[in-house]
Amino acid sequence: MTKKRIAIIGAGPSGLAQLRAFQSAAAKGAEIPEIVCFEKQQNWGGLWNYTWRTGLDEYGEPVHGSMYRYLWSNGPKEGLEFADYSFEEHFGKQIASYPPRAVLFDYIEGRVKKAEVRDLIRFSTAVRWVEKDGDTFQVTVCHLPEDRTYTEEFDQVIVCSGHFSTPNVPHFAGFETFKGRVLHAHDFRDALEFKDKDILIVGTSYSAEDIGSQCWKYGCKSITVSHRTAPMGYKWPDNWQEVPLLQKVVGNTAHFKDGTTKDVDAVILCTGYKHHFPFLPDDLRLKTANRLATADLYKGVVYVPEPDLFYIGMQDQWFTFNMFDAQAWWVRDVIMGRIALPDRATMEADVAERVAREDAGEDDYDAIWYQGGYVKELIDETDYPSFDVEGACKAFKEWKGHKKENIMTFRDNAYKSVITGTMAPKHHTPWKDALDDSLDVYLQN
Amino acid sequence: MTKKRIAIIGAGPSGLAQLRAFQSAAAKGAEIPEIVCFEKQQNWGGLWNYTWRTGLDEYGEPVHGSMYRYLWSNGPKEGLEFADYSFEEHFGKQIASYPPRAVLFDYIEGRVKKAEVRDLIRFSTAVRWVEKDGDTFQVTVCHLPEDRTYTEEFDQVIVCSGHFSTPNVPHFAGFETFKGRVLHAHDFRDALEFKDKDILIVGTSYSAEDIGSQCWKYGCKSITVSHRTAPMGYKWPDNWQEVPLLQKVVGNTAHFKDGTTKDVDAVILCTGYKHHFPFLPDDLRLKTANRLATADLYKGVVYVPEPDLFYIGMQDQWFTFNMFDAQAWWVRDVIMGRIALPDRATMEADVAERVAREDAGEDDYDAIWYQGGYVKELIDETDYPSFDVEGACKAFKEWKGHKKENIMTFRDNAYKSVITGTMAPKHHTPWKDALDDSLDVYLQN
Repeated sequence: MTKKRIAIIGAGPSGLAQLRAFQSAAAKGAEIPEIVCFEKQQNWGGLWNYTWRTGLDEYGEPVHGSMYRYLWSNGPKEGLEFADYSFEEHFGKQIASYPPRAVLFDYIEGRVKKAEVRDLIRFSTAVRWVEKDGDTFQVTVCHLPEDRTYTEEFDQVIVCSGHFSTPNVPHFAGFETFKGRVLHAHDFRDALEFKDKDILIVGTSYSAEDIGSQCWKYGCKSITVSHRTAPMGYKWPDNWQEVPLLQKVVGNTAHFKDGTTKDVDAVILCTGYKHHFPFLPDDLRLKTANRLATADLYKGVVYVPEPDLFYIGMQDQWFTFNMFDAQAWWVRDVIMGRIALPDRATMEADVAERVAREDAGEDDYDAIWYQGGYVKELIDETDYPSFDVEGACKAFKEWKGHKKENIMTFRDNAYKSVITGTMAPKHHTPWKDALDDSLDVYLQN
Repeated sequence: MTKKRIAIIGAGPSGLAQLRAFQSAAAKGAEIPEIVCFEKQQNWGGLWNYTWRTGLDEYGEPVHGSMYRYLWSNGPKEGLEFADYSFEEHFGKQIASYPPRAVLFDYIEGRVKKAEVRDLIRFSTAVRWVEKDGDTFQVTVCHLPEDRTYTEEFDQVIVCSGHFSTPNVPHFAGFETFKGRVLHAHDFRDALEFKDKDILIVGTSYSAEDIGSQCWKYGCKSITVSHRTAPMGYKWPDNWQEVPLLQKVVGNTAHFKDGTTKDVDAVILCTGYKHHFPFLPDDLRLKTANRLATADLYKGVVYVPEPDLFYIGMQDQWFTFNMFDAQAWWVRDVIMGRIALPDRATMEADVAERVAREDAGEDDYDAIWYQGGYVKELIDETDYPSFDVEGACKAFKEWKGHKKENIMTFRDNAYKSVITGTMAPKHHTPWKDALDDSLDVYLQN
């Protein structure tokens, strides 16, 4: 009997979790299927693989990266630590709790270098089209440097392409004639572009909060944040105001729902991202809101209409790397026949139950515990190392408290690892004064 | 016998020419095939359909538009006038020779409104994948507002998706740490973003020349243009300099090949575009340099390896709208059986002969006459109205002379229509002082 062939689409945190999941089974002596991972970028790491590019990349493909210079983790690393590869194992010591991008990239990479899975990845290879044809999937890809397309057959496909790469970009009246830059957070790269400028941010989620904070830290003149439903409500600096929804821009004057106006130099749309899978036809394409209980995914990972197709990391996220791990180990065990899928009605009921349970939650704390429970549920069914999920939930709660205390100093706090039990050191420099975000400088504790 | 079905991909100037070509045959009583035109944008006009968006559009698709505010035609309208629809017919009078974008959009639209072909276009519909399956093409598209994919069968396919939408974006050392905006011309939208700024432009073709001129007109502090092989050599204003190739940027300092440096606020890459067809597999995908004699296209339009597939407008262009017309009428006549294709060897010899003839040319004037000859060759073989191609070539020559005289005043000149024979009026305001580029203001002659 020939080996099953499995395609993994994407080598970001989700795809790498999937590769590590299979490799960990192989390391324990199990026979694993043939794995091919297709990655559009030249390197692994997904969003954590920084690029200066915006819009389209060197091959004309949409740029995957949404990260910007000087980005630090906006949540404590204690909430995302790999259960099988601690920060202390990677860095040889415990490190401070809100690492900059380069530090987290190094950590992600450390685990998969150790696992020696790089050879399973075909880099610079974009997936063009996937079709189910009888019992197998036909996956057509393009090797971008050679501009060469080819098709291969797979038994199962795991979509790990992320959902924070395709911007949701609303139109507001007057954008056509605004005399400055209008951009989405996805294309934001360097806060120094906006030094001494008056900027308008539309949106109130993480991008709004963090890009505004970056611009403040790097010297923009003023930050005006427009909200649709409610202000973020943190204690902002003096040159930061929250205003109701943008109605229109006239020349460079932004008009808000309460009748107030503000002259601005640039508009940054922090209006979220879309689940976008242009390489999938209707019968394979996940269509879901960005929520904790996605549509159509049994156990959050099995595509109910076509259970040989899996999606990792498609939920809105409190938990990230460790949730992708929990999902990847679980999907691995389905593919390897260690976990049996129930019939379709049971899978549909599971989806409905998860949606109802999420909907019954009342606030962010409920959401954190809901997703913590989901992670725990999955890891309890595989050999992924168990860890103190409740402890991670508590770290998230502390984090939210620290943000409420002071949004510009919350990153100066430290938390205890739920993997190794050790306390993180306080960082050597307050975040607002730490202008060098390099790995070398961050690790000088 | 059921009618043949023809797919046209794109409703820009090339696709609209193709629609008009079929409609003109129908208007003369011929029976035409069933035509379906797929257009990604919500409206027709291709590049001439201005958008404030950059990067990805509201559906997550690459933005087609490369045009910017205040863009005026950079060549005389007398070189692109439709032989079957003059500027005088459209505007009810002769107009000045270098219309702004909105005026040309209005003109393009006027002809196809008159032809009543809008119902043949499926707007907001992106082509996802095309395959040849036996005698027919399977064309899979996505209706973007509904996020719905579907596949239809066609006998022949005409690719009219343009080749000035996918930027060619080179990397230079230090872009990762440049403390300002690095953008490609494709994402340039409003020169006022760069008012009082020092800008670096990389490249020496039309985008470099025109975006630099726009930024100069709208008050940027200085323009530095970096060339790989040779400077453009026009008589530039005092705050404009041409320098050798960029080697690296360090912080905000650009270093050039001659050892000189310049501190700049933004880098605009005017480094050209790619032929990019992510919806086509290897056996159908045109791979060509941007030149007058493309690879693999018999008569510049028939894809030799698969002669039921056609490409319009894939050449580098002196002639534009009228060349697309010449090609579209000719392709129409192949599809309708009025023109027979020769065997493959003859088609390959035709391609080789065109390449050799282009290569034998020595300068831009040779290139203009070469492409004029190509247009004439095609229109002589169909019922497209003949026009004074030599006259158009002469207008191009005059235009180049005017640019050499003064790059900032060449648009103040006027030329004679080769369609109606009437002289254009001089525009009421010198280009450099005409800050309002609206249709209403332009037509006030």
